[in-house]
Amino acid sequence: MAERAGSPPRRVGLLGGGVIGGGWAARFLLNGVDVRLFDPDPEAARRVEAMLANARRAYRKLTLAPLPAEGELTLVTSVEEAVATVDFVQESVPEREEVKRALLAAACRAADPGVVICSSTSGLLPSDLQADMERPERLAVGPPFNPVYLLPLVEVCGGERTSPATLQRAADVYRSVAMWPLVLRREVEGFVADRLLEALWREALWLVNDDVATVEEIDDAIRYGAGLRWSFMGTFLTYRIAGGEAGMRHFMAQFGPTLRLPWTKLTDVPELTDTLLDKIVEQSDAQAAGRSIRELEELRDDCLVAVMQGLRTSRFGAGAVLDDYERALFDAGHPTVMGDDDDLSRPLRLHSARVLPEWVDYNGHAHESRYLHVFGDASDAFLRYVGIDAAHLAAGGSYYTVETHLSFLREASAGERLHVTTQVLGFDEKRLHLFHELYRSEGDVLLATAEQMFVHVDTAEGRARPAQPEVLARIAKLAAAHTALPRPERAGRAIGISGATVR
Amino acid sequence: MAERAGSPPRRVGLLGGGVIGGGWAARFLLNGVDVRLFDPDPEAARRVEAMLANARRAYRKLTLAPLPAEGELTLVTSVEEAVATVDFVQESVPEREEVKRALLAAACRAADPGVVICSSTSGLLPSDLQADMERPERLAVGPPFNPVYLLPLVEVCGGERTSPATLQRAADVYRSVAMWPLVLRREVEGFVADRLLEALWREALWLVNDDVATVEEIDDAIRYGAGLRWSFMGTFLTYRIAGGEAGMRHFMAQFGPTLRLPWTKLTDVPELTDTLLDKIVEQSDAQAAGRSIRELEELRDDCLVAVMQGLRTSRFGAGAVLDDYERALFDAGHPTVMGDDDDLSRPLRLHSARVLPEWVDYNGHAHESRYLHVFGDASDAFLRYVGIDAAHLAAGGSYYTVETHLSFLREASAGERLHVTTQVLGFDEKRLHLFHELYRSEGDVLLATAEQMFVHVDTAEGRARPAQPEVLARIAKLAAAHTALPRPERAGRAIGISGATVR
Repeated sequence: MAERAGSPPRRVGLLGGGVIGGGWAARFLLNGVDVRLFDPDPEAARRVEAMLANARRAYRKLTLAPLPAEGELTLVTSVEEAVATVDFVQESVPEREEVKRALLAAACRAADPGVVICSSTSGLLPSDLQADMERPERLAVGPPFNPVYLLPLVEVCGGERTSPATLQRAADVYRSVAMWPLVLRREVEGFVADRLLEALWREALWLVNDDVATVEEIDDAIRYGAGLRWSFMGTFLTYRIAGGEAGMRHFMAQFGPTLRLPWTKLTDVPELTDTLLDKIVEQSDAQAAGRSIRELEELRDDCLVAVMQGLRTSRFGAGAVLDDYERALFDAGHPTVMGDDDDLSRPLRLHSARVLPEWVDYNGHAHESRYLHVFGDASDAFLRYVGIDAAHLAAGGSYYTVETHLSFLREASAGERLHVTTQVLGFDEKRLHLFHELYRSEGDVLLATAEQMFVHVDTAEGRARPAQPEVLARIAKLAAAHTALPRPERAGRAIGISGATVR
Repeated sequence: MAERAGSPPRRVGLLGGGVIGGGWAARFLLNGVDVRLFDPDPEAARRVEAMLANARRAYRKLTLAPLPAEGELTLVTSVEEAVATVDFVQESVPEREEVKRALLAAACRAADPGVVICSSTSGLLPSDLQADMERPERLAVGPPFNPVYLLPLVEVCGGERTSPATLQRAADVYRSVAMWPLVLRREVEGFVADRLLEALWREALWLVNDDVATVEEIDDAIRYGAGLRWSFMGTFLTYRIAGGEAGMRHFMAQFGPTLRLPWTKLTDVPELTDTLLDKIVEQSDAQAAGRSIRELEELRDDCLVAVMQGLRTSRFGAGAVLDDYERALFDAGHPTVMGDDDDLSRPLRLHSARVLPEWVDYNGHAHESRYLHVFGDASDAFLRYVGIDAAHLAAGGSYYTVETHLSFLREASAGERLHVTTQVLGFDEKRLHLFHELYRSEGDVLLATAEQMFVHVDTAEGRARPAQPEVLARIAKLAAAHTALPRPERAGRAIGISGATVR
């Protein structure tokens, strides 16, 4: 399943333009594939355009990589026009077996003989859907998940008469548009993913029915807990880790008896025979692929941290919890405004940081922009120190950086603690001239310097204006104290190669 | 539930130091709370230390905010020593009712009268657990989820004799250490979260038992699909969106009949009466809190994008799918090495980008470090253009930035398209001197400039060495062509305030 994806098809035919069909259209179009879409509903065009607008918005955020030129969307008025000249067909009409069967049979007659036809059904069996087709070996089921343009999963399931080549082709097409095809071993009502979702959904309906919890509480019980893990690790690998070094057999031995408890309405449970236990243990070992529990724990934690940090941007769910937590920590840790007794005889030390793993680039050390990120945070700490607080910002005044000169002296590696010292080199009522030094805290090793010029602006007008008197008074006090310090060696530098090849 | 968290307790007593008890110890210690832990197992100390090491590692990545000084961990040899001088007690011993009841009764006798005692049980009912306690009103159940130090969810459930003040206190304590307490309306076997997990788990066991799928395939069916959504949005809100503008009633009408289909082993389903439908619709409306489907779709998509981008760092699950996709896009979009017929008479235009929402800082435009991020990518594009490819890097040669001078002329806002032009100002066999200009693509508006000096290094030795001849030949050809260009106005600048207050 980890094969390299090939090129997407040139053109696909879509039958049905609802939430699922429209999602398919968006995914194919954004990946440069032309789409011919048939949906008799006069509202279909509007729905597909709205879905496409959502998808464009999401992809702009998803990646900076150069997307191919968008495919062309053509709305057609018959099944035949949708499928006659395409490389692949996906059907996504409502879940009525007789409608789907008739449509698929018509598509099969009109499409080129080699074209694979997939149905988005999440419940009907491929053996039934292919019954009326002239070439049933070309049909597979490929149910995606909403939103189709973002979620990678698509199950691929063949019926009794589906050929292996059809399953292969369907998986290749899906993989070529950045999906994760999960080819199923055999057909079963609900396939795999929907069976799991449906069991949880039915249990959730009972909880509402019995007034145990509201729909919001049930959603919260997922998204602040197991749901965070499920975004990267299913239940089996999670439980393997919970079993600790003793592994999956230990976990099953410990929690096997609870299968008999009335913890869900699903009380019909498989017998935990030695055969089933052996199967689970063997498959779990294969899944772990030699990774120790410790390695899996670190992988799980890294993913949880990344997911929560990602959600922080939208301040939603666990992201809001993290955001609140960090604000509280910052509030508790930063009294920060200059005090009367502060020692101003040395450069200020107002900011610390740690090199995060994601700061490291292909050279194996922190990317240059991350140095400026840390210097920027040090400048913010300095500005808070001289009294630029939330009230000041709300009143429309702020210092903007206009010029920065960075010197990179040594590399920083993931995990290292850093701190920054800051010296005032000059100021007037609109300008501020700072010199930062970035140190690896262990051993006080100088890693980089940043000389920065700021201008105080009226953020509404977008033009320079003097800073407030109390801010200027603090800067003046600091600047006066810092005149006693030696001028940094790297201050005032210009870049150039003496005697170099060009100039 | 959105109240501001108060201060954590000063000291807590923990009974049991396994996966759950050790996780509680880690969460409390990292939040500055002293912990007294009782576990008769001689291995407990080692296990808790290992858990704590994991948690420290995770918190270092989780936040740059200043954490409080770590609490002190004291291992004690009796229940009484663990609870006698603490503000809160959490019990996490194995799930045997008689053991828990005896321990909780002993803890109740030894703790100060006002102290709240919570059990981590995920299945036993609080009404049963409090049966032998002298002050049963102080007991609640507070089951967390693994890893306890990272996952926010903790359910809070009282028994028949639990006081409302106890539930409030438990929720406050949990909230003070960055958790999300979900206070339940009434006690039920498995509470809410575990009922949902258990239904899914039992279905999963059937799928393995019946050879429909392996444990890895089942995990994949979750983590590439619904699991990504569940990290921020539960099933009810997800389905509300799927119902479209017609809302929750429409969704239920459409999918209600499928409850009768054999899509899971959970075939005992509640009757979808008008009463139940009205309840679901009303609660779903309350949950959506006036947000339109369009707003919810955008929120969902933003969160999905953020989660997938977060997972990309670990190259795991959907993060690996995204990483592969982007690599393929970059490969397809960047033939990039200098061709014989390239137009070298103007600055090169090798890199484009878009301002992402998360680049924007409290001033409402892109943070200064993001400008350097874009310039850094432009430098990388330049280096690929002159032949610094993966093979070159693997052979141990790379250009490192030693100096960067940035001028910020105009702000960049979220969503704007950017591009960079690059001019060679000079080079010798070890050095390279570039000048970048960053433009808002719409209207070709100059936003910032970057003058950069690079040195070619032997990455193994960490010292300067000449670049390879074919790379130098390309740079020489470019440099020769660029001598005809005017020297950029801002090249060679130094920072300073003429006539400023200090110097």
